[in-house]
Amino acid sequence: MEAEIISVGTELLLGQIANTNAQYLGERLAELGIDLHRVTTVGDNAERLRSALEGAWERADLIILTGGLGPTEDDLTKETVAEFLGLELVLDEAALEHIRCFFARTGRTMPPANAKQALIPVGGEVLPNQYGTAPGVWVEKDGRIVVILPGPPFELKPMFENTVADKLRRRLAGERKVIKSRVLKLYGIGESHAEELVRDLIASQTNPTLAPYAKETEIQFRLTAKAASEEEAEAMLARLEEKVRERLGRYIFARDAETMQEVVGKLLSVRGESLAVAESCTGGLVADWITNVPGSSAYFLGGVVAYSNALKEKLLGVPASILQEEGPVSSAVAEAMARGVRALAGADYGAAVTGLAGPDGGTPEKPVGLVFVAAANGQKTVSERYEWRGSRLVIKRRAAQATLNLVRKLILGLQD
Amino acid sequence: MEAEIISVGTELLLGQIANTNAQYLGERLAELGIDLHRVTTVGDNAERLRSALEGAWERADLIILTGGLGPTEDDLTKETVAEFLGLELVLDEAALEHIRCFFARTGRTMPPANAKQALIPVGGEVLPNQYGTAPGVWVEKDGRIVVILPGPPFELKPMFENTVADKLRRRLAGERKVIKSRVLKLYGIGESHAEELVRDLIASQTNPTLAPYAKETEIQFRLTAKAASEEEAEAMLARLEEKVRERLGRYIFARDAETMQEVVGKLLSVRGESLAVAESCTGGLVADWITNVPGSSAYFLGGVVAYSNALKEKLLGVPASILQEEGPVSSAVAEAMARGVRALAGADYGAAVTGLAGPDGGTPEKPVGLVFVAAANGQKTVSERYEWRGSRLVIKRRAAQATLNLVRKLILGLQD
Repeated sequence: MEAEIISVGTELLLGQIANTNAQYLGERLAELGIDLHRVTTVGDNAERLRSALEGAWERADLIILTGGLGPTEDDLTKETVAEFLGLELVLDEAALEHIRCFFARTGRTMPPANAKQALIPVGGEVLPNQYGTAPGVWVEKDGRIVVILPGPPFELKPMFENTVADKLRRRLAGERKVIKSRVLKLYGIGESHAEELVRDLIASQTNPTLAPYAKETEIQFRLTAKAASEEEAEAMLARLEEKVRERLGRYIFARDAETMQEVVGKLLSVRGESLAVAESCTGGLVADWITNVPGSSAYFLGGVVAYSNALKEKLLGVPASILQEEGPVSSAVAEAMARGVRALAGADYGAAVTGLAGPDGGTPEKPVGLVFVAAANGQKTVSERYEWRGSRLVIKRRAAQATLNLVRKLILGLQD
Repeated sequence: MEAEIISVGTELLLGQIANTNAQYLGERLAELGIDLHRVTTVGDNAERLRSALEGAWERADLIILTGGLGPTEDDLTKETVAEFLGLELVLDEAALEHIRCFFARTGRTMPPANAKQALIPVGGEVLPNQYGTAPGVWVEKDGRIVVILPGPPFELKPMFENTVADKLRRRLAGERKVIKSRVLKLYGIGESHAEELVRDLIASQTNPTLAPYAKETEIQFRLTAKAASEEEAEAMLARLEEKVRERLGRYIFARDAETMQEVVGKLLSVRGESLAVAESCTGGLVADWITNVPGSSAYFLGGVVAYSNALKEKLLGVPASILQEEGPVSSAVAEAMARGVRALAGADYGAAVTGLAGPDGGTPEKPVGLVFVAAANGQKTVSERYEWRGSRLVIKRRAAQATLNLVRKLILGLQD
C-alpha cells in the first residue's frame, strides 16, 4: 500500500506551526509497514487542494488529508474532497447529535455554523472525534482509500490510534511486508563517541540498519529491520540490540517511546518508594515531566519551586550561610535543597536542581548554562555539575533530564 | 513571486523528525511578501523527487529544495535537480577548499566521499555554508529561481538569513508586494461563537483577510494584508484589528507571539507585584510556563506542587476538614491553596489549580477533566470551574492556561 498525506492549512504555509501531524502519521504508517511517498501541504484554498488531490489520486492507494474540518468558511477540505470524488455531502444525524452533546456538556448551545461539521460524503464512514466536534471520514472509491482527519493534533492522534490504524491493519492483513524499528536512548555519552563505539555496526549493515541521532537531552540509536513477518523483524532487531548493548549498555536508560521520567517512575513504583523535587532554574519542569506520567501520584509526593532565596531558606531549610558563601548556584545548595525537600515531603528520595538558565545573570565564574543537580536518600547525597550552551528553554530541559538521570543513578546505585 | 518548497529526506516521511525547515522558510517567505503555495516532502528517491520538481516547475517562480546534500549515496538532490534542469555538475574548487578546511579545523582529513559536495550545476552560484560542509546552490533558468539548501536546520537557517534572503529582497525590489499578518489571541470564548461575532468581516474581505483557528488553549484570529508597502499593509491590519476588537476585545489577551505567561508577567512587572503558584493537577506546568519567560525571577517567587493531600495541608494550610468534606478537587480547596501559597511565599498574588488530569481516578460526580482554578490577592479570592475532555497532557495545558488567565483577570479587575 502506497500512501500520501495532504495537509491543509494556511497557518502551515505561513510557518505559524510545524506540520507535526505529518510527522506523527509518518511514524504510524511506517509502523504499519505502509510506504509513505509524499507529503503535500497546501493552504486553505479549494483550487490548490484540488490540484494536490489530483496528483495524489494518480500515485497513491491511500490518501490521508489533515485539517480544514472546522466550522468556519475557510474550512473546505471535506467539501473539496467530496466534489473531487463526485460524492454528495449529506447530513449525518448521529454526527450532528455528537456535536450537539459536545456543546451541551459544557453548558453551551451548538452554534448553527457547527452543523456543517456533520456533513459526510455519501458512502463515507464517520470516524468519531472524542476530543472535538469535527468527525473524521473514511471513504473508498475506485480502489483508493481517502481518510480525512481533523487538524488539531489532540483530536487527530486519538482518532488515528482508535479507528484508522485498526482499519488499515485489517486491510493489510493480506499483504506481507513489515518495517519495524526500535530506539535505544542513551544518557551520559556524546554522539560521536557513542557512534565510534559501534561504527562497524553502522557501516556494515543495510538490513537491519543502525542510525544515531543527537537529541537535545539524549542520544538515540534507531534500529530498523525489514522482513516478511513481524517475528522475523523483531528477531533481527533483538540480535542487533544485543550487540549495541554489549558496547553501550551502561549508557542506555530507555527504549522506544519510554522517557526518563517513566523509567524513574517505574523504578520507584516497583520499590514502593517516593520522590519529591526542589527546583530553582528548571522552574517546575522536572515536576511537570514527572506528573506527565499517568499514575505518578503513587510515587510523586510533590515539589517546591524555590525561585527566590527566601523560599530556599524558609521551605527547604537551606542554611543562609551556604547561600551566602557558595551562592545559590552551587553543589552545596543543590545538595541542601535535595535533603530539604526530602525531609519536607517525607519522601524516600529528594532531588534538586539549581543553575543559571539565562539569558542574563551570568558571570565569568558562574556563567549562563552552569547547573548543579543533586539527589538524596536516607544514606547519601550525590550531586553533579553541568555546563551547557543554549537558550533558556534548552538549558531548562537539559537540567531537568540531568536531575531525573541522577535520581535514576542513585536508585540503581550506579557510579560514574 | 510564487514559491514552493520541496523537502527531501526519508527521515521526514518516516516521522523521525518534524519538517521544521519548511516552517522556518514559510515564516521567512511570508515576511518577504512571497506567497508560499505548496510544500512537498519526498524521500531520498530520485524518481519521486523528479516528479515533485516537475509539478513545482509548472506552478512556481521560486523553488526551494531542502536536504539531500550530504556525502552519502542516498543524497541526490543536486544530482536530480541538475539533471532535471539539463545542467552539468562541475567541481567548484573554492567549495572543495572550504570542505577541506572544515575538516582540517577539527584535525581531520576530508573523506573522499565529501568531494561530491563541491559539485555545482553549471551557472549556479555557491551559497557558503558556515556550519557544515555542504554548500547551497542558487541557480536560475527559464525565469525561475531554484535554491538548494542543506537539511540540518543549524546550517540551513544561517544560509538563508545571510545570503538567500538578501538575494530575494533585491529581486523583489522591482515588484512591490508585501504580506503582513497579525495574530489576535482570545481566551474564554469558543471558536464558532467568536466567528459568529465577526462573520461579516470574514466573509466580506479578501484583503485584508480574517481567519479563525482553534488552538488547544486559545482561539486565534489571523489578520493578513497584502499591500504595496509595509506601511500600507500595517494600516490595513490596524483598521481590521480595531473592528475585531470592537466585537471581541474583552476576550483578546495577547497579540502575535506573545503568550499568556508573558502577558501576566508584564502586568506584574509594571505594577511591581509578585506571584506564587500552588499546583496539583498541573504538576509544575504553570510554574514552568511562568519561568520560561526571561526575567521572570523579578516577579515570580516560586511555587508548590502539592500532589499529595499531606503537602496541601502542611505547606499550604488547606484545612483537613475542607479536603475531607469538599474533596481535593473543589473550588474551596483551590481557593484555600491560592491563599495559602500567597501567604507562604509572601507574594502579592497567589494562584492555584486542582483537578483530575486522568486518565484514571474519575467518578461520575468528579469526572476526569474537572478542574478548579483560583487566584487571590489581599482583598479577594476568585475561582472558576472547568470541565474538559482530552488526554492527561491536554488537560494539564488547558488547566495551566486557565490558571494564568484567572490571574490576569484578577490583576485587571475583569469580571465575567
